[in-house]
Amino acid sequence: MQISEPSIEAIRFNEQGLAPAIVQDAENGEVLMMAWMNGASLRDTLRTGRTHFFSRSRQKYWMKGETSGHVQEVVSVHVDCDADTLLVKVRQTGAACHEGYRHCFFRALDEAGEWRTTEDRLVDPDEVYKKQ
Amino acid sequence: MQISEPSIEAIRFNEQGLAPAIVQDAENGEVLMMAWMNGASLRDTLRTGRTHFFSRSRQKYWMKGETSGHVQEVVSVHVDCDADTLLVKVRQTGAACHEGYRHCFFRALDEAGEWRTTEDRLVDPDEVYKKQ
Repeated sequence: MQISEPSIEAIRFNEQGLAPAIVQDAENGEVLMMAWMNGASLRDTLRTGRTHFFSRSRQKYWMKGETSGHVQEVVSVHVDCDADTLLVKVRQTGAACHEGYRHCFFRALDEAGEWRTTEDRLVDPDEVYKKQ
Repeated sequence: MQISEPSIEAIRFNEQGLAPAIVQDAENGEVLMMAWMNGASLRDTLRTGRTHFFSRSRQKYWMKGETSGHVQEVVSVHVDCDADTLLVKVRQTGAACHEGYRHCFFRALDEAGEWRTTEDRLVDPDEVYKKQ
């Protein structure tokens, strides 16, 4: 995908220089995860065709799948009306969630108002992340 | 939907007391919008079955559709692995976007790396919001 600097500068990053990026499975529409991008990670996402983010907790730039191999191939990039939130549609390899689930939203409120796990793990996160 | 206080307290709201809430069309999987919830708006979302948010720019609590009539009926509420992001699946009446589009992500990067509008407006926002 081409990178146009005015298009990147049009994004209204927050006071920390970040914008939330919602990642959606381009095939079945599942919302896989939400993470944060800065200008550099958005540029690298477009340049490489693979999602890159910025971790606020680790203050670190990362490519999704760099440890796990569970990369996200970019299909399309969308921006919202306020130009402060991104939606990235991807083809997901393996598990999007670092806990080994296909997506991060594996808990839902049940009838009693309690969080209940509704998905099965695809992979054992200890296997994926501790081998390296 | 029942409200369990421990389940609300399990959400890791940010330093401003807010969590991003991704709103997805429960029928076709479209990501409709992203907005922010605090504890009160999450409680009211569950209590009423209609989405409520907190506007950071206006510092104001609001129900989606209170002006436009374009309400969102809650189907399910999900939380991510870090317990700091919500996913709310809804049945959307009318246009989720205040600019009159079905969803807020109506612009996508084209081949030249420019933002291009990819959707048609459902309604004229001047009609919807200025009549009141």
